[in-house]
Amino acid sequence: MTAPVWSVDPRNGKQREEVAAEASPEEVDAAVRAAHATLASLTDRSIRAALLRAAADQFEAHTEQVVECADAETALGPGRLSGELGRTCYQLRAFADVVEDGRFLDVIIDHADATLTPPRPDLRRWKVPVGVVAVYAASNFPLAFSVPGGDTASALAAGCPVVIKAHPDHPATSELAAALLRRAATEVGLDEGVIGLVHGFEAGVSLVKHPLVAAAGFTGSVRGGRALFDAAAARPKPIPFHGELGSLNPVVVTEEAAQERAEQIGAGLAGSMTMGVGQFCTKPGFVLAPAGPSGDRLLKSLTEAVSDSESGVMLDGRMREAFLAGVQERAALDSVETPVTPGAGGEHTVSAGFLTVDAAWLTTGEAHDLLLEECFGPVTVVVRYSSRDELTDVLAKLPGNLTATAHIGEAEAAGEGASLLADLTPLAGRVLVNGWPTGVAVAPAQHHGGPYPATTSASTSVGGTAIERWLRPVAYQDAPEGLLPVELRDGDGGGVPRVVDGVRVG
Amino acid sequence: MTAPVWSVDPRNGKQREEVAAEASPEEVDAAVRAAHATLASLTDRSIRAALLRAAADQFEAHTEQVVECADAETALGPGRLSGELGRTCYQLRAFADVVEDGRFLDVIIDHADATLTPPRPDLRRWKVPVGVVAVYAASNFPLAFSVPGGDTASALAAGCPVVIKAHPDHPATSELAAALLRRAATEVGLDEGVIGLVHGFEAGVSLVKHPLVAAAGFTGSVRGGRALFDAAAARPKPIPFHGELGSLNPVVVTEEAAQERAEQIGAGLAGSMTMGVGQFCTKPGFVLAPAGPSGDRLLKSLTEAVSDSESGVMLDGRMREAFLAGVQERAALDSVETPVTPGAGGEHTVSAGFLTVDAAWLTTGEAHDLLLEECFGPVTVVVRYSSRDELTDVLAKLPGNLTATAHIGEAEAAGEGASLLADLTPLAGRVLVNGWPTGVAVAPAQHHGGPYPATTSASTSVGGTAIERWLRPVAYQDAPEGLLPVELRDGDGGGVPRVVDGVRVG
Repeated sequence: MTAPVWSVDPRNGKQREEVAAEASPEEVDAAVRAAHATLASLTDRSIRAALLRAAADQFEAHTEQVVECADAETALGPGRLSGELGRTCYQLRAFADVVEDGRFLDVIIDHADATLTPPRPDLRRWKVPVGVVAVYAASNFPLAFSVPGGDTASALAAGCPVVIKAHPDHPATSELAAALLRRAATEVGLDEGVIGLVHGFEAGVSLVKHPLVAAAGFTGSVRGGRALFDAAAARPKPIPFHGELGSLNPVVVTEEAAQERAEQIGAGLAGSMTMGVGQFCTKPGFVLAPAGPSGDRLLKSLTEAVSDSESGVMLDGRMREAFLAGVQERAALDSVETPVTPGAGGEHTVSAGFLTVDAAWLTTGEAHDLLLEECFGPVTVVVRYSSRDELTDVLAKLPGNLTATAHIGEAEAAGEGASLLADLTPLAGRVLVNGWPTGVAVAPAQHHGGPYPATTSASTSVGGTAIERWLRPVAYQDAPEGLLPVELRDGDGGGVPRVVDGVRVG
Repeated sequence: MTAPVWSVDPRNGKQREEVAAEASPEEVDAAVRAAHATLASLTDRSIRAALLRAAADQFEAHTEQVVECADAETALGPGRLSGELGRTCYQLRAFADVVEDGRFLDVIIDHADATLTPPRPDLRRWKVPVGVVAVYAASNFPLAFSVPGGDTASALAAGCPVVIKAHPDHPATSELAAALLRRAATEVGLDEGVIGLVHGFEAGVSLVKHPLVAAAGFTGSVRGGRALFDAAAARPKPIPFHGELGSLNPVVVTEEAAQERAEQIGAGLAGSMTMGVGQFCTKPGFVLAPAGPSGDRLLKSLTEAVSDSESGVMLDGRMREAFLAGVQERAALDSVETPVTPGAGGEHTVSAGFLTVDAAWLTTGEAHDLLLEECFGPVTVVVRYSSRDELTDVLAKLPGNLTATAHIGEAEAAGEGASLLADLTPLAGRVLVNGWPTGVAVAPAQHHGGPYPATTSASTSVGGTAIERWLRPVAYQDAPEGLLPVELRDGDGGGVPRVVDGVRVG
């Protein structure tokens, strides 16, 4: 007796098709056991790279079908979804490169040294996969942060099978994506149990508590993510929970920047905050703009650009309701104004807008603390500040973020902006200068994570180092070479970069 | 009204002197704030290296005083404590080298690339200190895992001030050590608030909950460590808790190894399990020896060696009571035998011994699960197994460990031992072949950690990579070079090893 899982069209709120059923505890157990049984088959790094590349090929070969399915369930549009599919394939292949490169194995070899006091044994350390990884898919990127997304790709790259909890907003896309991943697994000779997929809230709770689940990745709300984090920590044997929960993504515009290019910044902000109907985890949701004429120019430009933006369909009806309620609650606070009121567009759409408030309301007491919480959707809060001290006081009240952005003037780029960067660094995992946080490049140096609640750990979910989440180090002491993997033997270690007796090699 | 903190002589159970008072919540708060105020002063890596070297110099200059004080409180003896002081100084200097080398900064630079779709911005990632670190000192190494130990050294190396919760078994040594560390801080021009020290159980609880504490390191019992881990996870803003809690450190002796050198293995085991009165976290507490004549020879040798070992003083009276009770409880289990009964030596001492049991009792039901828990002190459990399958079944029941050891025969070193190594790897953070786990080399490739309950995270508390616990990554996007630290600028990055556009440099 498990509930059916329906695919719903957010453009009209109607059920499209019955896709699957919510997984029972027994079904979750079976998926985890099937995944666990494939662990040894992933030991070989070359098969992991082959799997990731075969998966990318599968998605490219089925672009039309995947994009059509995802659009029907998410209303994100074929243009955006085609781009997301491209990003997803790029990411799968990038992790194949990471696997082959081998730097992530973090190999350190110290040969025995009898001349030391005490004598040092032979020690050879590398990283091994943690085991089965639970992936909690996001709503807002039905490909790049969902079934075939970065968590899955990095876990497979690390040598960990996955069991994915599908997001209820795109169950059909999830089933299709899992089928393509399994086809890729079969193609390279792996058991399809390497990719598990379960639906349903209770299934997600069972999953994080399963004794054979060794780690979890999550992208979603603070409320849902914190509940799962707590469950992961409360297990008899706690497991790491890498959750991306929520982020205000503050933007600071200096007086100099506003003087030099208020109009450009206002227009850029409008574009970034309304992108994807404001449903990016990196949406700039909190903007500190100077009081006075330069800041006024910025607001004027923002007003024009936001007024011109088209209304859009959010990912589901529940999010739309939460957005409208969140905006209303914030707009009702003392002295909060709404130059462009965000609100209901049509029956199923929303229109973008923004709120303004003086910084003084935020620095005195807790009455306006609601403005320091993320409001998912096309809205941002512009806080007008009158001095550097006031700016500092507001920044000190902010929670952790994925990103923090400084818009600075030309003269400040030579060094005066350094103190602002120093103030922003403790607040975020990525700090931008004169740019916009939406758009998270898949690159080795990327860091998509930040102090809580942005993430529940110091990890990233985008970029090559995302693989580190699914590994743990092991050191072998005085093991005969014949028992060690090639990466830990003398010789060239199969080309893997290593540190041998303190010297970097390869 | 806070309780006095007494230094006690474990050789007679008498109070030696009143050393300090338990810290009130206000005093904990003051220590954390004083530490937090020094964060910016630790930005310069060269001052961190200087601090660590000055600290090592201080301890060497006060060797006699430190060893005398520690011996009076711990009864570990001047020989062992002099060695531990040497190890502590070596460790402080090793982390100075780690700081200067800069590999731990994990710098990755991706220059902007407009030819990609979408175009890639300039991204430069490194790691920054997390903030104030809480250190919970261990009882059994009053120097190397206490106030001036690896947690403190690695946190300072990372750029994090520390507030240390002293272990109640050596409060005078803790005060002396903190004074020496502060003297070193003053010498290199740092505020002595960089080293905080608090006494008392409640102070420890306040510390892990303090909003300005960003991470914690702990070495101690499963019970105490789990309670603090839970408190760290339950904070409004959870923090990483790197705890080393407990470990059985299983040893597997193959039939071939026993045939070849049963006597040598029995004697080696006796030496390792009685070292430091069995109070090492890496004590081999669970030994799988073959049934039959070779295993019998091993037991005979073990019996002789253990019977010859001298009784010793444990770290405190409470631990002695727990040891005696733990042994009694285990010995009372069905079919558990005690060829040499561990027990009370004199009024304040204990004598070593060991228990034996057939593997079948462990693989059927939970009646003997107590044997799978660490018993602190000079005792080990020898489990006799009759087949490879039975061995596998027992290994599958074991919790996580710091170490796992295989004693194999000559022929097995060529490759047949590989399956045993594969079975042991999931159980531990360090896997040894034909050696003993006591003695943890301070070396870059060391990993002193393991699956829960050995540690509560995938981190190590010994070796160069222990610094990783106190860092978090930050990526800068399109930041003008003038605003970046030298390590992230173009040029040679101040000599720090980096990955630039996918190529390892330096």
